[in-house]
Amino acid sequence: MVVIVKQTATKAQLDTFLQWVYDMGLKPHLSEGAGTTIVGLVGDTTKLDENHVRSISIVEDVKRVSEPYKSTNRKIHPEDTHISIGGTSVGEGSLAVIAGPCSVESEEQIIQVAKAVKASGATMLRGGAFKPRTSPYAFQGLRAEGIELLIKARAATGLPIVTEIMNIEHIPLFEDVDLIQVGARNMQNFELLRELGHLKKPILLKRGLANTLEELLMSAEYIVAGGNRHVILCERGIRTYETATRNTLDLSAVPFLKARSHLPVVVDPSHACGVAWMVPSLAKAAVAVGADGLLIEVHNQPEKALSDGAQSLRPEQFAEMMQQLRPLAELMGKKMT
Amino acid sequence: MVVIVKQTATKAQLDTFLQWVYDMGLKPHLSEGAGTTIVGLVGDTTKLDENHVRSISIVEDVKRVSEPYKSTNRKIHPEDTHISIGGTSVGEGSLAVIAGPCSVESEEQIIQVAKAVKASGATMLRGGAFKPRTSPYAFQGLRAEGIELLIKARAATGLPIVTEIMNIEHIPLFEDVDLIQVGARNMQNFELLRELGHLKKPILLKRGLANTLEELLMSAEYIVAGGNRHVILCERGIRTYETATRNTLDLSAVPFLKARSHLPVVVDPSHACGVAWMVPSLAKAAVAVGADGLLIEVHNQPEKALSDGAQSLRPEQFAEMMQQLRPLAELMGKKMT
Amino acid sequence: MVVIVKQTATKAQLDTFLQWVYDMGLKPHLSEGAGTTIVGLVGDTTKLDENHVRSISIVEDVKRVSEPYKSTNRKIHPEDTHISIGGTSVGEGSLAVIAGPCSVESEEQIIQVAKAVKASGATMLRGGAFKPRTSPYAFQGLRAEGIELLIKARAATGLPIVTEIMNIEHIPLFEDVDLIQVGARNMQNFELLRELGHLKKPILLKRGLANTLEELLMSAEYIVAGGNRHVILCERGIRTYETATRNTLDLSAVPFLKARSHLPVVVDPSHACGVAWMVPSLAKAAVAVGADGLLIEVHNQPEKALSDGAQSLRPEQFAEMMQQLRPLAELMGKKMT
Amino acid sequence: MVVIVKQTATKAQLDTFLQWVYDMGLKPHLSEGAGTTIVGLVGDTTKLDENHVRSISIVEDVKRVSEPYKSTNRKIHPEDTHISIGGTSVGEGSLAVIAGPCSVESEEQIIQVAKAVKASGATMLRGGAFKPRTSPYAFQGLRAEGIELLIKARAATGLPIVTEIMNIEHIPLFEDVDLIQVGARNMQNFELLRELGHLKKPILLKRGLANTLEELLMSAEYIVAGGNRHVILCERGIRTYETATRNTLDLSAVPFLKARSHLPVVVDPSHACGVAWMVPSLAKAAVAVGADGLLIEVHNQPEKALSDGAQSLRPEQFAEMMQQLRPLAELMGKKMT
Repeated sequence: MVVIVKQTATKAQLDTFLQWVYDMGLKPHLSEGAGTTIVGLVGDTTKLDENHVRSISIVEDVKRVSEPYKSTNRKIHPEDTHISIGGTSVGEGSLAVIAGPCSVESEEQIIQVAKAVKASGATMLRGGAFKPRTSPYAFQGLRAEGIELLIKARAATGLPIVTEIMNIEHIPLFEDVDLIQVGARNMQNFELLRELGHLKKPILLKRGLANTLEELLMSAEYIVAGGNRHVILCERGIRTYETATRNTLDLSAVPFLKARSHLPVVVDPSHACGVAWMVPSLAKAAVAVGADGLLIEVHNQPEKALSDGAQSLRPEQFAEMMQQLRPLAELMGKKMT
Repeated sequence: MVVIVKQTATKAQLDTFLQWVYDMGLKPHLSEGAGTTIVGLVGDTTKLDENHVRSISIVEDVKRVSEPYKSTNRKIHPEDTHISIGGTSVGEGSLAVIAGPCSVESEEQIIQVAKAVKASGATMLRGGAFKPRTSPYAFQGLRAEGIELLIKARAATGLPIVTEIMNIEHIPLFEDVDLIQVGARNMQNFELLRELGHLKKPILLKRGLANTLEELLMSAEYIVAGGNRHVILCERGIRTYETATRNTLDLSAVPFLKARSHLPVVVDPSHACGVAWMVPSLAKAAVAVGADGLLIEVHNQPEKALSDGAQSLRPEQFAEMMQQLRPLAELMGKKMT
Repeated sequence: MVVIVKQTATKAQLDTFLQWVYDMGLKPHLSEGAGTTIVGLVGDTTKLDENHVRSISIVEDVKRVSEPYKSTNRKIHPEDTHISIGGTSVGEGSLAVIAGPCSVESEEQIIQVAKAVKASGATMLRGGAFKPRTSPYAFQGLRAEGIELLIKARAATGLPIVTEIMNIEHIPLFEDVDLIQVGARNMQNFELLRELGHLKKPILLKRGLANTLEELLMSAEYIVAGGNRHVILCERGIRTYETATRNTLDLSAVPFLKARSHLPVVVDPSHACGVAWMVPSLAKAAVAVGADGLLIEVHNQPEKALSDGAQSLRPEQFAEMMQQLRPLAELMGKKMT
Repeated sequence: MVVIVKQTATKAQLDTFLQWVYDMGLKPHLSEGAGTTIVGLVGDTTKLDENHVRSISIVEDVKRVSEPYKSTNRKIHPEDTHISIGGTSVGEGSLAVIAGPCSVESEEQIIQVAKAVKASGATMLRGGAFKPRTSPYAFQGLRAEGIELLIKARAATGLPIVTEIMNIEHIPLFEDVDLIQVGARNMQNFELLRELGHLKKPILLKRGLANTLEELLMSAEYIVAGGNRHVILCERGIRTYETATRNTLDLSAVPFLKARSHLPVVVDPSHACGVAWMVPSLAKAAVAVGADGLLIEVHNQPEKALSDGAQSLRPEQFAEMMQQLRPLAELMGKKMT
């Protein structure tokens, strides 16, 4: 961390500051130029808050030199992390395709969709049991029953299952879930993240609607620092002024996250754009930009879906998209089943 | 809700759609113009999801005519809601001033700050016990102990206390807190909101960093619909591209929220701008725009604060600001103690 | 256009409104439901301003049913527009690759880069002569001399040349330029757009940093409605809260624009991300999402570039990227030279 | 400017970089710490482009220490700038109130509005002659004739006149205009700014929809550096994800700009919120936050306005707002006429 000192600072103030740096367990490295005094803070600065340093009266500005994340940092762990989930693997030269309906609605629905997406080559089944809904009057998911139905669909198809957690108290209900999803609205639910860090289960961590990529890595850090290295990062669109799509898919997130971190990165084009017809185009772009996987909403009757039907592909549309993705994935060096 | 039907829709498709409207417990009102068929959905449409309707194949577009919130809607409850908190009242012709440090750090610190802000006219004491921090390595608050210290500060000054909750499991710890704060990052933690709807305690609900005002009202709706009408809304700055301030304070939120809802609205200029010198100016603007109260960070030694020191006023700066606010509040018809 | 009438409107007010609709050359289509009166405005509503209608006292809300753009609208002109530029074509089954330095700096530089990018398969040469710079103290381009040097580079390589216009008075200087670029900061310089509509030259119209896709189409409408159909749209990243990249590349713009309009769409990953190492990944994504072309910054000595060196590829990096793009373009049905 | 050097840099690379710094007319100040080498660039760095420096291969990151603007910088010109306009003054202990219709529509309209706003205490008359419109089919203003009508309204009332310029070629038409407005969409029309720097006339420079405050100051720098110190800055709302208001009024802009620059700052609440009923509240907030003036849209028949009627106050509403502003302005130490 580099600290630029105000020109008005007195010698005594500077000395007090240098002492404070020592007190924080760091070494100050002083550089006095013409008109500018700079102090480099040498040591582990991850626990130092930039805003805190900035509040010190003689500090003009602060610049972090090293990233504030460690366990998720590729500089420290250069090797790609591969995550095994019920027989499939994410991040190891294959393209993970996690498909299924926004919400689990009935046994018939989830099993039908599961069979359809498996037939087209999906590697995992997704389906919402606990649903975060803007309105208290909207369908909130089948909750615990939804997880039961997902387990039945797994039994019927062999596909590992992925579903979202919204509440620390529900953790026991997720014991038999293969991949636990943390949704965009809970990306900074730090209490939940800390608990998930104590599990052995893989976590799918979605980027918040207005969170930076650094914040996403810091949230992953909560989980990984707690002992659970099995984190998959997910770009799912951010909130901008544009209204042509529901959110703005930020595909630069993929190369950025893969450069900075060793964790696998997947993309959810369905939630990003919010309209089914655009999903295949964005899915292709996600594969081409280097994503390790995709989350795709598929519903057998989108117009009857209890949530987010507008963005769901029908099984036959999903099958067609998968056909188009195959040669592209191969070109990018990723296997599809 | 008004539905615009695609020009390509057949008579049979339209009939199926009209039947679906009846099945949803609503009445369709059909209007066939030259080139455009419009269906008005008459009845309680709050539980209908716009996206869902939009996904129906013959639907071109959807326009909500009535707001999706009810319990918080001024149209339904025209009278201002006043909230009594430990002898003070929010929203009843007085200006609530909630002041204190970002984090509770020690008994000495919190009592000293509490006495100072009380002497200047603050009506409540704030202080973070559980702190949502971007980094797992940053100070996370004194947690349960912090609440104990706040209770001591209340005993010493008589000021009601305000502190943030981050976890459903912590609710019992907040039994003796006067006003429970839901922070920006938990504004859409729907599981938490639902639980808070079952309490008798007043809730301070902060707007999320990237949430619309309608979403804020929908989150309040979770609490109010659950039976707890004692909700105070808080504007605290939103995330934009501008970096001159930490967030962008959206003061149009105040007249908008007060027009649409009967709930009181307070403003937190400290978190919005992130720098102490700008807080008094923004506090004045908040009073002038019609806010029912303010949240102000005050710390006896901002440069030693364990979090967010950069935006904290010193007690003497707070006292000076309060003096400046008095005639302004009077002009706006708001009493200060 | 659909107008929702306030419940408080009197019969007399409604009649006045209906008369006003007739006066605007439109036919009103009235639909009175339970509690909601809706008026459909039938006819050419492109010249009607939504905000204007919204300001009428009995109007609750307004919803546009048909797009406000005509000449650029695919519904009206279903066929793809192909644009011929000096022997190459944009939008006709080939991938246009417009490459070159941010600024033209010297004859040696521009000819050297031109030869290099041609050798790797670029189809046009770009280079800034007039440079829009945030600071008046920064290098402003070689201006007229820059265009002369581009013409020399064209003579040396046969590549058509592309450069940016910033001032109506400069139009005569662009007589010998093959494709005139309107930069992001001038996307809503309507006076300039109107003049360009009277030229016979192709125009490359870049999306503004904070402009919606509908606004981009409306700006294109200025040019096309003026008589110049030769417009290429360009996505180049939008301004968001994220700071990991200079701007956020919005690749959903490509399928959206191609669905709504018949105009070709190209992507500029260099300006979007602002860092050279990320350009090849985003270029692949742009091809996969269906772009008709790319704008790529290439400089022989990026560290000596007088502007935007950070995002420039070296000629050998560009050559390598072009090799990677070839099979991808082929897969997408696009030829590369 | 502080440059952080990559750990991988060799001694030879560092020497080359230091020589480059000398070549730029600056002095390097080297500081070699444990693991981090920092170079301070001493001298006038305003003409140095951060991105340029960042592109140099051994540069890890760059931090600007001093602001890139000079002529507009309060550090260099500590005294407030006062601007005299036709007998009134902006920035000298008075509150400038610039009121009038969005567009000049007819002689009768503009004179009627001018008399009304003067009677209520407005200090200048605004009215659009050249209108930047998103759609080429919308009313584009009366253009030159509009300026003639403004001049007649000035003759009838004595109010100085303010109107927007969109085209360098129109400068001669503005010879008799008292204050020339540069609209949000032209804030970075650098060619226009440069020309305005050669005039003797005061300029009202509006912040662009997605421009930072630093960029606003840099655009003002174009004008002031050209020799024209008479620049008034205007905050008019920025583009965010929020749709409850047309734009988001950023009132923190006022204290920020006044701290960094000596130029006066005014606020336009009408364009910011886009709805008339909210204008008085935001106007009060603008005065309370310390603005030197206001721009307020007033129309005698808002529902007949040819543009932006939704946000216009009627003369009687304007009169009432002015009454409410008087004691507030007095409290802030600002005189109103």
